[in-house]
Amino acid sequence: MPTYTAPTRDTRFIINEMLDLASYGNLPGFESATPDMIDTVINEAGKFCSEVLAPLNQIGDEQGCTRHDDGSVTTPDGFKEAFDQYVESGWGTISAPEEFGGQGMPHTLGFVIEEFVATSNMAFGMYPGLTTGAVAALIAAGSDEQKATYVPNMISGKWLGTMNLTEPHCGTDLGMIRTKAEPQGDGSYDITGTKIFISAGEHDLTENIIHLVLAKTPGAPDSSKGISLFVVPKFLVNDDGSLGERNAVSCGSIEHKMGINGNATCLLNYDGAKGWMVGEENKGLAAMFVMMNAARLGVGIQGLAQSEVAYQNAVTYALDRRQGRALTGPAEPEAKADPIFVHPDVRRMLMDAKAFNEGMRAMCLWGALMVDLTHNAATEEERAEADAMIGLLTPVIKGYGTDKGFDFATNMQQVYGGHGYVKEWGMEQFVRDARIAMIYEGTNGVQAMDLCGRKLASKGGAAIQAFFKLVGEEIASAKQDDGLKDIAERLEKALDEQQAATMWFMNNAMQNPNHLGAGAHHYMHIMGIVTLGYMWLRMAKVAQERLAGEPEDKAFYEAKLTTARYYAERFLPDAGSLRRKLEAGSESMMELGEEAFATAA
Amino acid sequence: MPTYTAPTRDTRFIINEMLDLASYGNLPGFESATPDMIDTVINEAGKFCSEVLAPLNQIGDEQGCTRHDDGSVTTPDGFKEAFDQYVESGWGTISAPEEFGGQGMPHTLGFVIEEFVATSNMAFGMYPGLTTGAVAALIAAGSDEQKATYVPNMISGKWLGTMNLTEPHCGTDLGMIRTKAEPQGDGSYDITGTKIFISAGEHDLTENIIHLVLAKTPGAPDSSKGISLFVVPKFLVNDDGSLGERNAVSCGSIEHKMGINGNATCLLNYDGAKGWMVGEENKGLAAMFVMMNAARLGVGIQGLAQSEVAYQNAVTYALDRRQGRALTGPAEPEAKADPIFVHPDVRRMLMDAKAFNEGMRAMCLWGALMVDLTHNAATEEERAEADAMIGLLTPVIKGYGTDKGFDFATNMQQVYGGHGYVKEWGMEQFVRDARIAMIYEGTNGVQAMDLCGRKLASKGGAAIQAFFKLVGEEIASAKQDDGLKDIAERLEKALDEQQAATMWFMNNAMQNPNHLGAGAHHYMHIMGIVTLGYMWLRMAKVAQERLAGEPEDKAFYEAKLTTARYYAERFLPDAGSLRRKLEAGSESMMELGEEAFATAA
Repeated sequence: MPTYTAPTRDTRFIINEMLDLASYGNLPGFESATPDMIDTVINEAGKFCSEVLAPLNQIGDEQGCTRHDDGSVTTPDGFKEAFDQYVESGWGTISAPEEFGGQGMPHTLGFVIEEFVATSNMAFGMYPGLTTGAVAALIAAGSDEQKATYVPNMISGKWLGTMNLTEPHCGTDLGMIRTKAEPQGDGSYDITGTKIFISAGEHDLTENIIHLVLAKTPGAPDSSKGISLFVVPKFLVNDDGSLGERNAVSCGSIEHKMGINGNATCLLNYDGAKGWMVGEENKGLAAMFVMMNAARLGVGIQGLAQSEVAYQNAVTYALDRRQGRALTGPAEPEAKADPIFVHPDVRRMLMDAKAFNEGMRAMCLWGALMVDLTHNAATEEERAEADAMIGLLTPVIKGYGTDKGFDFATNMQQVYGGHGYVKEWGMEQFVRDARIAMIYEGTNGVQAMDLCGRKLASKGGAAIQAFFKLVGEEIASAKQDDGLKDIAERLEKALDEQQAATMWFMNNAMQNPNHLGAGAHHYMHIMGIVTLGYMWLRMAKVAQERLAGEPEDKAFYEAKLTTARYYAERFLPDAGSLRRKLEAGSESMMELGEEAFATAA
Repeated sequence: MPTYTAPTRDTRFIINEMLDLASYGNLPGFESATPDMIDTVINEAGKFCSEVLAPLNQIGDEQGCTRHDDGSVTTPDGFKEAFDQYVESGWGTISAPEEFGGQGMPHTLGFVIEEFVATSNMAFGMYPGLTTGAVAALIAAGSDEQKATYVPNMISGKWLGTMNLTEPHCGTDLGMIRTKAEPQGDGSYDITGTKIFISAGEHDLTENIIHLVLAKTPGAPDSSKGISLFVVPKFLVNDDGSLGERNAVSCGSIEHKMGINGNATCLLNYDGAKGWMVGEENKGLAAMFVMMNAARLGVGIQGLAQSEVAYQNAVTYALDRRQGRALTGPAEPEAKADPIFVHPDVRRMLMDAKAFNEGMRAMCLWGALMVDLTHNAATEEERAEADAMIGLLTPVIKGYGTDKGFDFATNMQQVYGGHGYVKEWGMEQFVRDARIAMIYEGTNGVQAMDLCGRKLASKGGAAIQAFFKLVGEEIASAKQDDGLKDIAERLEKALDEQQAATMWFMNNAMQNPNHLGAGAHHYMHIMGIVTLGYMWLRMAKVAQERLAGEPEDKAFYEAKLTTARYYAERFLPDAGSLRRKLEAGSESMMELGEEAFATAA
């Protein structure tokens, strides 16, 4: 059975050494996040995830969820008990606001726990994971009464939440939704319609489930401008907080999926269910985006997560499995064969995953810090800057992170040879689970268009210019340092490619917007490559500084430097070929009509 | 449910127009392969595959195979009847030698049928598919008696065959096998040992199964130089050809796998089973490679196959599913939304798969022609050249073909959004099935080392020099043609990258063989990219010639030209970044010791 160890040392390195979270201690929300506190939280969360959640991962996949005739859903063996422990330990409350019973610690720390949970058991993690988004939407757009009624119990884990967007005929294009909300004159609405692909839509983990549902009021515009958001609890909540009547929302079926079988993906029927509007009428899309942005970051972390757990197990296997001899001569002549760890192609796959995982972890936590600064930076200007930066990074974390997370989980399966294809070894589950992250909460094609069609151009390109400045300054400074010069120069070349690609969009997309669409995926990947390069340059800089002080765990910092070099040599070159593809534009891509795609006899 | 249409038009284009098979009509084995005959075979085989095999694909995945307590194995519903029809129609006999009851047609045509079968139902196709390799080994190394006893029934499909290489502790490193062969003094051997991952190792499709088994005779060298090959029938064969005693080989279990569930992957126990040596003692590895090379080409075709069937269904879905509007304004203003086919990112994924599938099909069939010429070219020199070329191409067809086949099957699943992740749509099965092709018959890492460590250097690099000459001449000629100039120049750049990478290996791999291992995967991909580019240039040339004659199906040839341009613009650039990675060498890749890969707390 696969195992999982939380990468606590690497996490501490990023938070305490690279991001230097302690230096933000004067800001609200950061006071309590001392290095000691951070260490304690990280270590305990890591322990819980590796000891309680990881052992349930394969069981969850094998058993899946079961829907009973009465519409109730049972989660896999052990999930309920593990969830109770999760709630008891307060893991979901770490970065939630204190006014609603949270611990008010930085999001940066909350993201760490999200990573550990998603890595040890992705299907399990989705139950509390989606609640985070629902809570964010309620806090941002809900009335005081709604917040008081739902938020504290959702934060504590007494209740869980869901996001109801997709319908059978529409997912990305939410303007087409058909679910109706009829006002009842008492402030409530009757919600009627069918929602599909609702993760954690029904289950036995909590006594109540709080659904956030997109629907249309009578006469609403027939577009995305006519969508409103509603809160629809499974059980109505009495004034004293006790549970009342069962609401008219029920699970019609659960999907049979490629993976994340431990999570119940439901079709939910709303048959005049009682709901209350969250925020303003027809402004549901904005409230939905609050929920969605939180969810997208969580999905990006899932990309890292599956690559990480697959990597850890592949390392174990590569050191244990013996086949053939090192190309440079037997590494262990007394044994019949060397561990496959000696083969460059195996090492290539391991180093690729290592370089991605550590770089991606840094990107996610840097992104989390931006979320914190959006709320808590000292000045309005700094808050706006952080908000713009995380807006820019969100589609990259989600899109690039999950594309590559899937690739590297697949490579780690490859390390196992034939055994990787057999279920009992558990590697193929990581690949199947990782696959959904490229699809849900907006496919990666949608992420690419969010980045290129919306975020790049926003406010005259302020965010991307700020990004270029940040990376450019780091490069300029590192080029002065002999130990970092080579990495910095390689990153500079990749940054040049990104800037050229940006310029190409500026010069060509107005004339033909398809040019933007045709290159958006490539651009998202260039940006992911450059951002991880920026992370690696910063990590290398810190590692070099530490090494100058002859630290105890010298090997850790030396590995950071080598991996930074590996990243520069083997990831950054792709920025060049991606730019060439992008600059090919959309002509040959869009030229052929549908008849050319039919299979001709 | 997904559907499949055999791409007969495209196949005819490659065979009749690009390869011009008719021009080889003066060579033995080619006489009967007239364009008319080819058309008939292709059309009928295509019909059989789409009407009989494709509808069983999803059933095979859902049901899988069942092992009963007596060790017998039942294949999924419908497989036995379909196999009987397959045998009756003689689809497995097309390119088998006439002296053993085959139809003696070119391998090029046999490959077409292999593609159609693998595309419509990969798990089914593996039953007869592996037999092809076993037959090749028996014909190459077996005695006349062995050939007479087994081969005709294996060709007709009365019996099926298997390849038994892997054992629990060894796969790639066959020198470590432990299966023993004790001579019995009567020419037979008692075979004892355990073999795993034996595809089609036990089933109910045929009355007998002919196992080809690697084992060691007493006192054989303790390395790959001490391996012998044995033929071990499930039922012994009496002198009159009737079936005799049940042999002591039995299925101990079947694997639960990520995919290809319709094929029984068996653990086989040999408990003193009676077998006969095939070829010379201790020369089993050479005989095994005959079998393996045939199998590797078949696996390469599986990469194409899953990408092709996934593509066909993704096209249907993209034209049917409506979400959002074209970036250039509504394509169908009267509808609520446009088909997702209008979105550049969807079109990118479809065009990528189209360009790969058609190019890969051309590469596979060009490779098949090399197989034919190896046997039947007019002069010894031409036969040797063809043999060297297919030797060079085999790891590329297998390794590059299955890596990319998996990637594009995955992209086609992406076109479906959330529905792609749900089992009933069938797209996720294509991805799961495609995954094994990167692993079995030698992982793609093994393919890369076969290409770079063995084939490149063989006979002073004669094969790769011949390849460079061939591609170089095609480019030089195309550069004179205004319609092909741009494609040719882009291919020239990619060929330059490959030549530089080859030179880099020559200058560096002697000094440190890890440099070769570190770049082998990249090199294999560069060579795949260039070879498909060469195929596209040849296809574009033919298409342009045809268009000059104002043909009836003008649109078909125009699509070829556009897709060739798309390939040149969007696939060839990767050769450059891959070369840069390759030239980074092995230092940062191999520098870190095992402790640096452990997850630190």
